[in-house]
Amino acid sequence: MTATRTHTLTRERVHHAWDNSLPPLLTIDSGDTVVFETRDASDGFITPQTTIEDLLPPRPFRGHPLTGPVCVRDAAPGDTLEIEILELQPGSYGWTRFSPGRGLLPDDFDRPFFHLWDLTRDPAPFRRGVRVPLEPFLGVMGVTLAQPGAHSTMPPRRNGGNIDTKQLTTGARLYLPVLVEGALFSCGDGHAAQGDGEVCITAIECDMTATLRFTLHKGRELPEFQFRTAGPLLSRTNSREWYATTGHGPDLIEAARNAVRHMIGYLVREHGLTREEAYILCSVAVDLKLSEVVDAPNWVVSAFLPLSLFER
Amino acid sequence: MTATRTHTLTRERVHHAWDNSLPPLLTIDSGDTVVFETRDASDGFITPQTTIEDLLPPRPFRGHPLTGPVCVRDAAPGDTLEIEILELQPGSYGWTRFSPGRGLLPDDFDRPFFHLWDLTRDPAPFRRGVRVPLEPFLGVMGVTLAQPGAHSTMPPRRNGGNIDTKQLTTGARLYLPVLVEGALFSCGDGHAAQGDGEVCITAIECDMTATLRFTLHKGRELPEFQFRTAGPLLSRTNSREWYATTGHGPDLIEAARNAVRHMIGYLVREHGLTREEAYILCSVAVDLKLSEVVDAPNWVVSAFLPLSLFER
Repeated sequence: MTATRTHTLTRERVHHAWDNSLPPLLTIDSGDTVVFETRDASDGFITPQTTIEDLLPPRPFRGHPLTGPVCVRDAAPGDTLEIEILELQPGSYGWTRFSPGRGLLPDDFDRPFFHLWDLTRDPAPFRRGVRVPLEPFLGVMGVTLAQPGAHSTMPPRRNGGNIDTKQLTTGARLYLPVLVEGALFSCGDGHAAQGDGEVCITAIECDMTATLRFTLHKGRELPEFQFRTAGPLLSRTNSREWYATTGHGPDLIEAARNAVRHMIGYLVREHGLTREEAYILCSVAVDLKLSEVVDAPNWVVSAFLPLSLFER
Repeated sequence: MTATRTHTLTRERVHHAWDNSLPPLLTIDSGDTVVFETRDASDGFITPQTTIEDLLPPRPFRGHPLTGPVCVRDAAPGDTLEIEILELQPGSYGWTRFSPGRGLLPDDFDRPFFHLWDLTRDPAPFRRGVRVPLEPFLGVMGVTLAQPGAHSTMPPRRNGGNIDTKQLTTGARLYLPVLVEGALFSCGDGHAAQGDGEVCITAIECDMTATLRFTLHKGRELPEFQFRTAGPLLSRTNSREWYATTGHGPDLIEAARNAVRHMIGYLVREHGLTREEAYILCSVAVDLKLSEVVDAPNWVVSAFLPLSLFER
């Protein structure tokens, strides 16, 4: 029996693309634990002093800053890499923003919007009477692609990557298919909270310190990423009623758009939020479900808002 | 102040299409309660004695047998009809079936499959070591369409209809846009349990006795149906871990298909179910979520299985 080890990778060195020619920063054995310090999706550009004016000049997105890659000894294509999420510690502040032309509603807003969150408080205050509990996870966890060259970190792929899956909180176990020798795992894009769908394209974005334990399953082939949650879902928000809006039609993206538009309408009308605040709240706390996908020609997408966010 | 009344509609008279020329069986006032007896989706054809052989000769689907319509006095287009679900009592047995060519995986199975459920037990036994808690709701609740003629009950539309929304359990409040004078509400298609997505196209189908209270909101226009849950979600199944499979890609339906295929694989491999049993279990208990819909060109759909279904 070999003793397992704990390693640390600071946020000093990051990379911004999936590229299997990048040399690993670390080589570990199955069973080892790595503490990853990760940078927020703005790569440190956004600070607690940032205002919307600072964000107006368009800046090209280089890709998510990722900490890694980590080489797992003996990992080879056809294996499965298990990542147990032991601990997640968000930084002291977070941010959410949207811009015209991006996100699920690219044409619904004329101007960019920006919100800073104080993450030293949990639930984090949003506006008077509205608070969002923190359920931190990493938006990006992935292994390196087999295809040569530099690949954008933006789309999720068979390697995992930018999967933005909010249930990957502390205690969950993520399973990724290994695609190259050594697996070459990297992570980043910390989110302090997010709804299923992350509709405005940002969650509560933040720095994160993530403690992950790796176990290699030799010869267990996996088609796409899978995971096991730590326990019951929605442990922070599922304490009372939910309000749901829906969209129907033959196109699921358009149905999702309409469900979110109706939720924005509900939040403005019933809870006094501005449209911009409502869109932000949808992105960080509203869950999209596929309610109906078999009764052609129309499907139903539902947007679920936990009413526990509101003070009574 | 007018006293409210309780009315009853038995399952003797049903209709099989949305048609605004159908005369109402009943006219009620806002505030009244109606007890609806509804027939199962097979219109009584399937009984506890039914075998797969009885179902082999293809039978044309006439439409869901619906109990109603009920005219709500003073309701007019532009109003909202609130339906409070006071009580739901499923019949003593239920069924789930699938056939090649239908459902989310029309090409994955060669032969039809059929399962009978004993609903006198809750959780209902499925196979050795697997039980499904009952969370009854009505698959179809709708008002009548403004367009003349007979319209299939199959697709969900702006009138609600076949919305198959599993969260509409006892205590929930459904809001429907009124589209014709009197609203003309009907319901049916009782489900004793279902996953978000109802992937094999049937849930645990059953007779239902539903007690619904109606409240008319004059002049409150609603774009599509909305609802408020009775309390926390998933009160029967969210007691321990969930296992999730995912599908990614540019087409959400194909991503949903792959997530379900991977879940079938997991259920066969890890829990010893046949592929057919696994598909059935996905339809009655696995929830589809939109995990990622903003990072083009790929989206992520997740299929969530509550591990509380399995004996430990």
